[in-house]
Amino acid sequence: MARWEPGAGDRLREAALSLYLERGFEQTMVADIAGRAGVTARTFFRHFADKREVLFDGASELEKKSLAALDAVPAPTPALDAVAAVLDTVAQVAGGDRELARKRQAVIMANADLRERELIKLTSLSTALAERLRRRGVGDIEASLAAETGIVVFRVAFSRWVTAAEVRDLRDIIRETLSRLRNLAGR
Amino acid sequence: MARWEPGAGDRLREAALSLYLERGFEQTMVADIAGRAGVTARTFFRHFADKREVLFDGASELEKKSLAALDAVPAPTPALDAVAAVLDTVAQVAGGDRELARKRQAVIMANADLRERELIKLTSLSTALAERLRRRGVGDIEASLAAETGIVVFRVAFSRWVTAAEVRDLRDIIRETLSRLRNLAGR
Repeated sequence: MARWEPGAGDRLREAALSLYLERGFEQTMVADIAGRAGVTARTFFRHFADKREVLFDGASELEKKSLAALDAVPAPTPALDAVAAVLDTVAQVAGGDRELARKRQAVIMANADLRERELIKLTSLSTALAERLRRRGVGDIEASLAAETGIVVFRVAFSRWVTAAEVRDLRDIIRETLSRLRNLAGR
Repeated sequence: MARWEPGAGDRLREAALSLYLERGFEQTMVADIAGRAGVTARTFFRHFADKREVLFDGASELEKKSLAALDAVPAPTPALDAVAAVLDTVAQVAGGDRELARKRQAVIMANADLRERELIKLTSLSTALAERLRRRGVGDIEASLAAETGIVVFRVAFSRWVTAAEVRDLRDIIRETLSRLRNLAGR
């Protein structure tokens, strides 16, 4: 077997998501995933630290690209507009393969521990965004509010994007959801 | 020893919070808490299911009163105004004893598991509020956005309320924070 197998990461991810859906996350072992992907458990561990990481390995890339997007926004941009620009980038990172995202979402929604992990991931992104907004000179409270509001918009939009009937892309849904929030909050 | 000891619940709560701060939550045993409060472990378990419940036993009352407050809002009220009325009630329930709240917050912030529990508690409140807003005829997405925005405002306001220098009451801080959010989101 070659030390590096092209596409093994993608095959492992597909195999893992299918098994988590069929048997449940708890009931699936790394050996099962590797077996279905046609690789060894060792190959699995070259791609993922454990079976949970298959679901959350995109988090650090998402955070890195989100912060870079925020840094690219011109300084005098109002806080929530800056967050809107970040959300466009989030849509690019998270809005690619809807079928995969649907499976992942179904797996996470079926398991309390995974739902908590997802919540914590987004809270950590929110904290990082707020911190970076403060560095840009946004006030302490406005920074927290803008970052947390951005995460709320993302969560609501993402859960719409993965529903069965939805065909619009994630970026459009995020923009529309933010617009609805602005209407809701407007006086 | 009397079967029912007046004030034992409050004494246990005070003792627990002090010990969690002194020794850490993980390192504190129920026997230590009971000992400091001058009661038996059995008395502890008449008041709390376990040592974590000392920190979270207010959650169900908070949710019940929040939903009752929402039901009391006249039907045609805009979603975020209805949520603002709920937040006034939340302030009444959660904004009583600031010294106790400060201790509780310090304990929770020092422990990742407790932070997760707090996050989950508020997410569950948000879900319940959104569901109740839908029943009032608020659209699906607006209901989620209004409920989640309310929780964001509460979290940001609460963390200000428990800071050392803060003297205003929780209700005023919540109202001001919501007002800031409206300014931020206004076009």
